[in-house]
Amino acid sequence: MDVEPSTEQTDMDAFFEELASKRMDALWRREEPSRPGGRRAPYAPAHWSWGEIRPMLERAGQLVKPGPDAARRVIQLINPSIREVRSALHTLTANVQMVLPGEIAPSHRHTNAAIRFIIEGEAAVTIVNGEPVSMSPGDLVLTPGWHWHGHVNQSSGPMLWMDTLDRPLLATLRIGTGEPYPDELQPATKPMGHSSAHFGGKGLRPVGERGQPVSPLFLYRWAETEQALHELAKMESDPFDDVAFDYVNPTTGGHVMPTIGCRIQMLRPGFHTRAHRHSYASVFHVFRGSGSTIVDGVQIDWSQGDFVALPPLSWHEHLNRSDSEPAFLYSSIDEPVIEALNLLSEDEYAEHGGYQPVTSKYSAS
Amino acid sequence: MDVEPSTEQTDMDAFFEELASKRMDALWRREEPSRPGGRRAPYAPAHWSWGEIRPMLERAGQLVKPGPDAARRVIQLINPSIREVRSALHTLTANVQMVLPGEIAPSHRHTNAAIRFIIEGEAAVTIVNGEPVSMSPGDLVLTPGWHWHGHVNQSSGPMLWMDTLDRPLLATLRIGTGEPYPDELQPATKPMGHSSAHFGGKGLRPVGERGQPVSPLFLYRWAETEQALHELAKMESDPFDDVAFDYVNPTTGGHVMPTIGCRIQMLRPGFHTRAHRHSYASVFHVFRGSGSTIVDGVQIDWSQGDFVALPPLSWHEHLNRSDSEPAFLYSSIDEPVIEALNLLSEDEYAEHGGYQPVTSKYSAS
Amino acid sequence: MDVEPSTEQTDMDAFFEELASKRMDALWRREEPSRPGGRRAPYAPAHWSWGEIRPMLERAGQLVKPGPDAARRVIQLINPSIREVRSALHTLTANVQMVLPGEIAPSHRHTNAAIRFIIEGEAAVTIVNGEPVSMSPGDLVLTPGWHWHGHVNQSSGPMLWMDTLDRPLLATLRIGTGEPYPDELQPATKPMGHSSAHFGGKGLRPVGERGQPVSPLFLYRWAETEQALHELAKMESDPFDDVAFDYVNPTTGGHVMPTIGCRIQMLRPGFHTRAHRHSYASVFHVFRGSGSTIVDGVQIDWSQGDFVALPPLSWHEHLNRSDSEPAFLYSSIDEPVIEALNLLSEDEYAEHGGYQPVTSKYSAS
Amino acid sequence: MDVEPSTEQTDMDAFFEELASKRMDALWRREEPSRPGGRRAPYAPAHWSWGEIRPMLERAGQLVKPGPDAARRVIQLINPSIREVRSALHTLTANVQMVLPGEIAPSHRHTNAAIRFIIEGEAAVTIVNGEPVSMSPGDLVLTPGWHWHGHVNQSSGPMLWMDTLDRPLLATLRIGTGEPYPDELQPATKPMGHSSAHFGGKGLRPVGERGQPVSPLFLYRWAETEQALHELAKMESDPFDDVAFDYVNPTTGGHVMPTIGCRIQMLRPGFHTRAHRHSYASVFHVFRGSGSTIVDGVQIDWSQGDFVALPPLSWHEHLNRSDSEPAFLYSSIDEPVIEALNLLSEDEYAEHGGYQPVTSKYSAS
Repeated sequence: MDVEPSTEQTDMDAFFEELASKRMDALWRREEPSRPGGRRAPYAPAHWSWGEIRPMLERAGQLVKPGPDAARRVIQLINPSIREVRSALHTLTANVQMVLPGEIAPSHRHTNAAIRFIIEGEAAVTIVNGEPVSMSPGDLVLTPGWHWHGHVNQSSGPMLWMDTLDRPLLATLRIGTGEPYPDELQPATKPMGHSSAHFGGKGLRPVGERGQPVSPLFLYRWAETEQALHELAKMESDPFDDVAFDYVNPTTGGHVMPTIGCRIQMLRPGFHTRAHRHSYASVFHVFRGSGSTIVDGVQIDWSQGDFVALPPLSWHEHLNRSDSEPAFLYSSIDEPVIEALNLLSEDEYAEHGGYQPVTSKYSAS
Repeated sequence: MDVEPSTEQTDMDAFFEELASKRMDALWRREEPSRPGGRRAPYAPAHWSWGEIRPMLERAGQLVKPGPDAARRVIQLINPSIREVRSALHTLTANVQMVLPGEIAPSHRHTNAAIRFIIEGEAAVTIVNGEPVSMSPGDLVLTPGWHWHGHVNQSSGPMLWMDTLDRPLLATLRIGTGEPYPDELQPATKPMGHSSAHFGGKGLRPVGERGQPVSPLFLYRWAETEQALHELAKMESDPFDDVAFDYVNPTTGGHVMPTIGCRIQMLRPGFHTRAHRHSYASVFHVFRGSGSTIVDGVQIDWSQGDFVALPPLSWHEHLNRSDSEPAFLYSSIDEPVIEALNLLSEDEYAEHGGYQPVTSKYSAS
Repeated sequence: MDVEPSTEQTDMDAFFEELASKRMDALWRREEPSRPGGRRAPYAPAHWSWGEIRPMLERAGQLVKPGPDAARRVIQLINPSIREVRSALHTLTANVQMVLPGEIAPSHRHTNAAIRFIIEGEAAVTIVNGEPVSMSPGDLVLTPGWHWHGHVNQSSGPMLWMDTLDRPLLATLRIGTGEPYPDELQPATKPMGHSSAHFGGKGLRPVGERGQPVSPLFLYRWAETEQALHELAKMESDPFDDVAFDYVNPTTGGHVMPTIGCRIQMLRPGFHTRAHRHSYASVFHVFRGSGSTIVDGVQIDWSQGDFVALPPLSWHEHLNRSDSEPAFLYSSIDEPVIEALNLLSEDEYAEHGGYQPVTSKYSAS
Repeated sequence: MDVEPSTEQTDMDAFFEELASKRMDALWRREEPSRPGGRRAPYAPAHWSWGEIRPMLERAGQLVKPGPDAARRVIQLINPSIREVRSALHTLTANVQMVLPGEIAPSHRHTNAAIRFIIEGEAAVTIVNGEPVSMSPGDLVLTPGWHWHGHVNQSSGPMLWMDTLDRPLLATLRIGTGEPYPDELQPATKPMGHSSAHFGGKGLRPVGERGQPVSPLFLYRWAETEQALHELAKMESDPFDDVAFDYVNPTTGGHVMPTIGCRIQMLRPGFHTRAHRHSYASVFHVFRGSGSTIVDGVQIDWSQGDFVALPPLSWHEHLNRSDSEPAFLYSSIDEPVIEALNLLSEDEYAEHGGYQPVTSKYSAS
């Protein structure tokens, strides 16, 4: 014989149904209990190897052309633990774009801010609001929100770079639109490298240019960045980052853009950083070198070209496995957003002398 | 006879499959074309009438008690056009909470920031980090992120108020945790109304208290707010807001909290505001009066107690239908978030002398 | 027999002479040795009694009329220890102005910022950039730099108020000019009390008005200020200030103007504050009450209407000598300047339980 | 027969005397009328030639040793039009210091902030709070307020540099003290060039170092500065400054210190800037080149090593007289002070196509 539902149950169900019919719900119905153990990473880290990414770009090179077939020839990195977001992080993307010799990625603009970190190739050019910006490996190029930008590769080889956009963040904020440039490529109205010259050098700023919300400096050259890292390495090391800089908006000393922060890090040969965690998310690209990152006890081994996504609040530490070569990690972070909302926090890993026990090796699935 | 897929198609499908197997995707696969007509509201407005809300709270009062059955006796307003978010706006909630005589909503704290705008009842108390804050209709009470707060109703009648939390925003940012207070109710360690006295009066601030990221003033009394509105009305009117103030953090002059802004507005008898739109979202509660709001051509008629959600970029104008009584609208807005990300924009409606043609009446569905 | 100067001496003198002839000097010639005992007040405090000031204004009333004889009928308080500055403090003035019934102090404007703290009389009006501002005892009225301002007394009695200008500071910065208004009195273009209504009330600000360098609120009414002080007194007391507020720029939460800060303080009956010192200067007017201030060991006894100048770094403590009546002290301070130059410091007096031994009574000379 | 003073006159004199006896004065007694013609420079410019300065330092080298005879061997430049201030500007000094081989200028610290711009010599060292900073011609070295600093010259030649201190400004603010270091020279506790490495390079900043009120970067190397100027010159020119940068605090993007701003300017061969004026004062040193500056119609011809003081609000334009060589001008300015007090203004010279008629040649007297 079947059991009758209790009267209470029936009443409650009827109540819930009526609420639904009136565009309401009961808060207590789906209440998440306060998570025991307090704060922890909301999703899993992810790793993508260059050995898998590069061939897919080759294939994409044969299958689609930028413009006619696709606004951009871009392979997206999808973190399986947040598949619905179709991105490496819940706020930022880490994708790879390829432009072949003679190709043009037509000029357009959109609400989304973007950065390009150059991986491979020489002498391609991005035109940002009329300024041609040259692209070489290790360079960081900014295309802030609502700035026109198009790419052209007049070199003899393919051009590949990392794209980070704030697309997932702006999508959750339901903000965003875009438009194509009237012509295929916006013409250059400024000399090559204008903003680089305009923003002078270390400790210098054009007279009177102050407090702009977005960096007016569009190019951060690898040659200068690498030299700065080596100079810093002679002087000091941070236990959690070893040798690291934030790229900054020269008019404020703050992050380059309000939605995307950029960081460059050198791990000296054999260096093993201590573990810490913070309330902002990070995705890094291995520009040079090979090593491991332990994330919440999971060991991720990486080498040149790889990408690793670190969710907020994940405990992480880095190890450079080479005894002779430094490793260089470029990171896109959402720290400026978390900081603006007064939600910034950082914790040092206290146990085991600051190093996590490795519980497993990372395996994609 | 059936048609064979083209070779190209087969290759492309195979490519997409292989990408998926490697935690990647092709950006061009799901590309949204730049929306013609440019920017517009990303979802629909919504309206809830007090005539529907109040009875459901009565029922809830019979069905659940705060504490044992439910952390809080709260009815959520669900905007059908963003049902997945289970909220009035994509960033902020607009819910209604009821505490009956003798009841206690136990003390807890969470990452989410919250505000309470009192709708009905007298002399209930919220204890915020040890400070008892009295609650009367029209009062605004702040319970900032990670501040302990519990509610107790020692009066003879039910206490009802509007809750706005930044829960949807923090959920999209994957941030948030909480914990119950060791006891049912955190004891009062400060005198009633401490922060109100501490933050003195108009144009006054305790010596040396500057630049705090979150307002240390927890109570904004209706009596003072209403008087300020009437004084302003004698002087001037804004074409888009008529008579309006933002509630501020007295240590910065900015919004009360980094994730939630609060606004109070008086529509004078018969006043019809001109239409505008902005890139931040707003949900308002009709504290007093009756009238209409036209949102993207849809007319929403409202009266006391109702709630209306206005998505970002929706054209909106308000009309007070009374010839004799002012209407008072309290709004929770996400402007501080949009502003921090440098995404703030506002447009005035230029056609038809600034007033939208009404294309339809709002109907829930 | 007389002594010959040494050769060295002759050479050095000749050298100094030649330097002088070439618009140079030798730094070591007039070097101040680092003062033993470190930092201390650079000049002496000063006290002026209302009993001496008031009669002089009477006389001035008979001798000069504002306009024809004098731009303003103002008696300056001169601190004898900085006589060359012809002011109460080295940065700010504390003067007293009188406008008799039917008189007009013609409209003008100047680089100098000024405040008026009303001492005596009712219903005179200051027109600030077209806004009529009523003046009653205890009110604070701002006339920021380069704002037109004129005063008119249409009441039946004399109007007296304290003037503080940043004249000495701007004079040392060699900045400053001014000009008369084309007519005798600038006409009112705004309703009486416009900015008071515009800046609403406690914790309220007009939508979108943010970050203005100078307070757009021109009037701080005594009725509201006194009430705020009494409410604060019920809650708490500061050991060095007892019950005190800074007047603020409602758009920033900071001081009302970049060169002059304003503070109001209530000493409860019998209260004796502990001694401290700070790197900013202060001059206070006794609005109500009687008591003593001990400054670097010197006891200054004051009563209603008196003025006391406290130089930077002077140790000071206040005592209200009444057992029944509170004392109210209004202060003009140069804290915003010192803070902007990153020179702010404060020290608590550690010895003798925080109270200075009195070494002498103040005597003017 | 002699004339009797009028009764009014007698009364007024008696009144003034009585006021003086009571530490008061009558404002109208010494009133400056509003200057016709409005704002203009408060004092005269000044010029000092290196041909006169250098020999006096030679003489000083024979007459005094740093330490025993003089805290520093410094020749002060005295602007005759503000002789009482004993400085080049009313806010800032422009002096020249010489340290001979083997000499030490003992470590001390003081409230005054200072900068050194190196004129002559190689490989001397300034130890700033334990960091050895090397000094070469064209380098800018900061010794912020209350930072220990001592100089040592272990090279084979004399070391000469420009000193700018905010001494006159702090003197007018009655602020300032100092103390000698316990030993002659503070020992180095950091490696040479630490802050240069720490603050990386163009567009880079150590992780998390934000918003410090004073620049933590102590050395700005000429090699980098000159390169930046040449790169900028390829791109653009400012009509009033030709090619110029402000030195910045890398943690804010603002001026290096709250009381002293530093600027470097390159005038290309033959370039003649248009005339303008601003409300801040400036004193420049001719690091390289020769030309003329027209100040309020007075032509000052300068060549390498010279100094020119430009008072606030003086109309000024620069001309590089060489057809082949650029001229480099280093300037110390008080802009950060004027800006903090909300007194910043700039005007372009409108007449005669933007160039002043020359009314006379500068002559010292």
